[in-house]
Amino acid sequence: MAVQKPSIPKGTRDFGPEKMVRRNYIFSIIRSVFEQFGYMPLETPTMENLSVLTGKYGDEGDQLIFKMLNSGDYLKKTSVADYEAGSKTLLPKIAEKGLRYDLTVPFARYVVMNRNDITFPFKRYQIQPVWRADRPQKGRYREFFQCDADVVGTDSLICEAEIIQMINKVFAGLNITDYSIKMNNRKILSGIVETIGAPGKETDFCVAIDKLDKIGFDKVLEELAERGFSEDAVEQAKPILKMAGSNEELLAESKELLALSADGSKGVEELEEIFTYLKKFGVEDHHVDFDLTLARGLSYYTGAIFEVKVNNVSIGSVSGGGRYDNLTGVFGLPDVPGVGFSFGVDRIYDVMEELDLFPKDNLVTTQLMIVNFDEESETHGLGLLAQFREAGIKSEIFPSSAKLKKQMNYANKKSIPYVLMVGSEEIANGAYTLKNMESGAQDKLSVAEIIERLK
Amino acid sequence: MAVQKPSIPKGTRDFGPEKMVRRNYIFSIIRSVFEQFGYMPLETPTMENLSVLTGKYGDEGDQLIFKMLNSGDYLKKTSVADYEAGSKTLLPKIAEKGLRYDLTVPFARYVVMNRNDITFPFKRYQIQPVWRADRPQKGRYREFFQCDADVVGTDSLICEAEIIQMINKVFAGLNITDYSIKMNNRKILSGIVETIGAPGKETDFCVAIDKLDKIGFDKVLEELAERGFSEDAVEQAKPILKMAGSNEELLAESKELLALSADGSKGVEELEEIFTYLKKFGVEDHHVDFDLTLARGLSYYTGAIFEVKVNNVSIGSVSGGGRYDNLTGVFGLPDVPGVGFSFGVDRIYDVMEELDLFPKDNLVTTQLMIVNFDEESETHGLGLLAQFREAGIKSEIFPSSAKLKKQMNYANKKSIPYVLMVGSEEIANGAYTLKNMESGAQDKLSVAEIIERLK
Repeated sequence: MAVQKPSIPKGTRDFGPEKMVRRNYIFSIIRSVFEQFGYMPLETPTMENLSVLTGKYGDEGDQLIFKMLNSGDYLKKTSVADYEAGSKTLLPKIAEKGLRYDLTVPFARYVVMNRNDITFPFKRYQIQPVWRADRPQKGRYREFFQCDADVVGTDSLICEAEIIQMINKVFAGLNITDYSIKMNNRKILSGIVETIGAPGKETDFCVAIDKLDKIGFDKVLEELAERGFSEDAVEQAKPILKMAGSNEELLAESKELLALSADGSKGVEELEEIFTYLKKFGVEDHHVDFDLTLARGLSYYTGAIFEVKVNNVSIGSVSGGGRYDNLTGVFGLPDVPGVGFSFGVDRIYDVMEELDLFPKDNLVTTQLMIVNFDEESETHGLGLLAQFREAGIKSEIFPSSAKLKKQMNYANKKSIPYVLMVGSEEIANGAYTLKNMESGAQDKLSVAEIIERLK
Repeated sequence: MAVQKPSIPKGTRDFGPEKMVRRNYIFSIIRSVFEQFGYMPLETPTMENLSVLTGKYGDEGDQLIFKMLNSGDYLKKTSVADYEAGSKTLLPKIAEKGLRYDLTVPFARYVVMNRNDITFPFKRYQIQPVWRADRPQKGRYREFFQCDADVVGTDSLICEAEIIQMINKVFAGLNITDYSIKMNNRKILSGIVETIGAPGKETDFCVAIDKLDKIGFDKVLEELAERGFSEDAVEQAKPILKMAGSNEELLAESKELLALSADGSKGVEELEEIFTYLKKFGVEDHHVDFDLTLARGLSYYTGAIFEVKVNNVSIGSVSGGGRYDNLTGVFGLPDVPGVGFSFGVDRIYDVMEELDLFPKDNLVTTQLMIVNFDEESETHGLGLLAQFREAGIKSEIFPSSAKLKKQMNYANKKSIPYVLMVGSEEIANGAYTLKNMESGAQDKLSVAEIIERLK
């Protein structure tokens, strides 16, 4: 067989031990918070039928779905005419399956397929990779993990208040302290377009104001005009886009502003209720900032929407979500309202690195390595090793009596914090030399003392 | 959009909450044992370049690799002539990537690509799904998880002895007690064919005796004859295939039998050394049975091989592995010896179910549900809920004041063990009614007492 230089597909990544340990640290905190709030795990297959995926993400999304060739003679149902008609025509005849594009559509599919077994409200979380045939670039991958939690089958705003707490708890667990949860409500956005005299144009309004951060106030006004908002409407939008103040002030102002819009008033009320629930939960420092200009792209949101940004880092939003009325309608199950949100683990990872928040000690896999001097040392070491492992200490022995330098280098590279020397003298005395690899300090200790120190 | 009845691709599965919790229980025990022995996590991409995958699994394997259509206009590098030449010729022009088929080849690829950053010996574990376009049938899926641990860059037999301990510890953790680790050595198999006068025919020998369990002694002899073993060779193989006794007896017998074969003697020596290491580790009940007829299919093994069967269940081997000399040679890095093994999680799951070994209490996600009677109950309940969660108790409140029956049904279906009633009287007294959902017993308890009971 010819020797080949191997590579991995662009936009994909290997996660070596160091990265894995850090990623698992983030995942485990998220998972434990989800479970603390009664969310249960779900996993769906990597492949979905293209009939399930197609048409759910817009035309652009459909293009970005990775498609799997049918197995066996995939051309058997095709003709030269199909070939000559081009990729698009040929596609459905040679590919029936695609890779999961997000976790939301598979979740909706699962709910519909299992509607008779599920007891609603159904709280599920899902942590799995998704795939998009996007052009890879810095921070954008073709394979990346999503961490979603959704509750469906209830319109209780307790769920929104709990999501805010979950975000708070995850960030507290990760030691991220300076962040803001921007919150708005889709009904408020409808109320605004109604109020400025452009009813029904909320999509255009959202698309334009979604760019406020990127292109600035004046350009957004221009875009509104281009999108067919009248001069008068744009004029009326100005003060709304500039509104500022505390949550209480903003709520009061928008209540007044949107008094004549049923939708708008309902949206403000829902926000107020969420704040009331937070108070009932006893949450004071909830990090929520009501932001009338938050729009979020996804068109299926119908109620509260939110987005989380960590301050003082140049990394986009790390979490977001919202309420929807009809997630499962496309699969034939109407009237399943719900609310969900998602953590962007790759971005959280980058934030943690940038702010140097990964714990130094906790993320160790092996705590102790026994140096292997010679046969006597090895034989005695194996007995010790069994005791350490029995005591729950992650430990190993260097598997051969290689040069000491090589063994110490191994421990160093693997960030093993303690190394144990088992020489003849140590064996005779039952006291072994424990070396702290960071400080260099050495102590002669019994097995019990070593276990005590490392636990 | 037309409503469609959704489905999932055949051979794939959704894992709902109940299954997930049980699977995660198995994974977490395996993971913790791997880490106890100094193995570190690795994850590789779902997609690999076909150049990496092809040619590693035999012709049949190549057919079973799921191939991904190139994104965009995948036909652009093709001509009608390519199409007319058929699927096989067209394939490399329209598909460059495939889904991971096992964890071994991606691991070898990772080692070669990162050879300069890895400190050897490199101990890695990897728990990820793999995909095979096999015909789905009972117990055989197109997407399933593998759990591999390998150490490469050392030929120390301490590693084999540790693998046996890892198997023992995982099974102890899962409460599986009645199982056998069948062990053999590829060198013994070469020694046997040499000794019976059919040197070099170990592959044929292995293929034939691999079927001993399935087709029986006589049929295996027939197959040996069919595969070109002389009458004399088959005659000499008979007593070998029938050898029985304790490990010590078998080792002594095979030592004598294979005395004239250098390979065979080395194989016996290696096995003896593994047993010696187990003794040095203080492991008595190691469950290892030396089995001269164990062959295992994979051709890259060169030393110890082993396979684990749980007794008294009709489920195939649940774990297996072996030593290899040259995992990475195909990618241009020779002389990287190693040893690895794998747990079959789907089969372990089935074993656990068949033997009713999943713990009843541990696998709960929500421990406590607060009943939501009315607004007063809800408001007070939210404050309590915050306290329970702060104390680390997985808890939730029913998100609306639905009928009591509906709420209790929810708790039941979700297997929530405790339900808390927060009525006016309870609120006034600061003592809440905690109901044990299994026994039906009810107690009036303070918040502190409830926390105490549930911790």
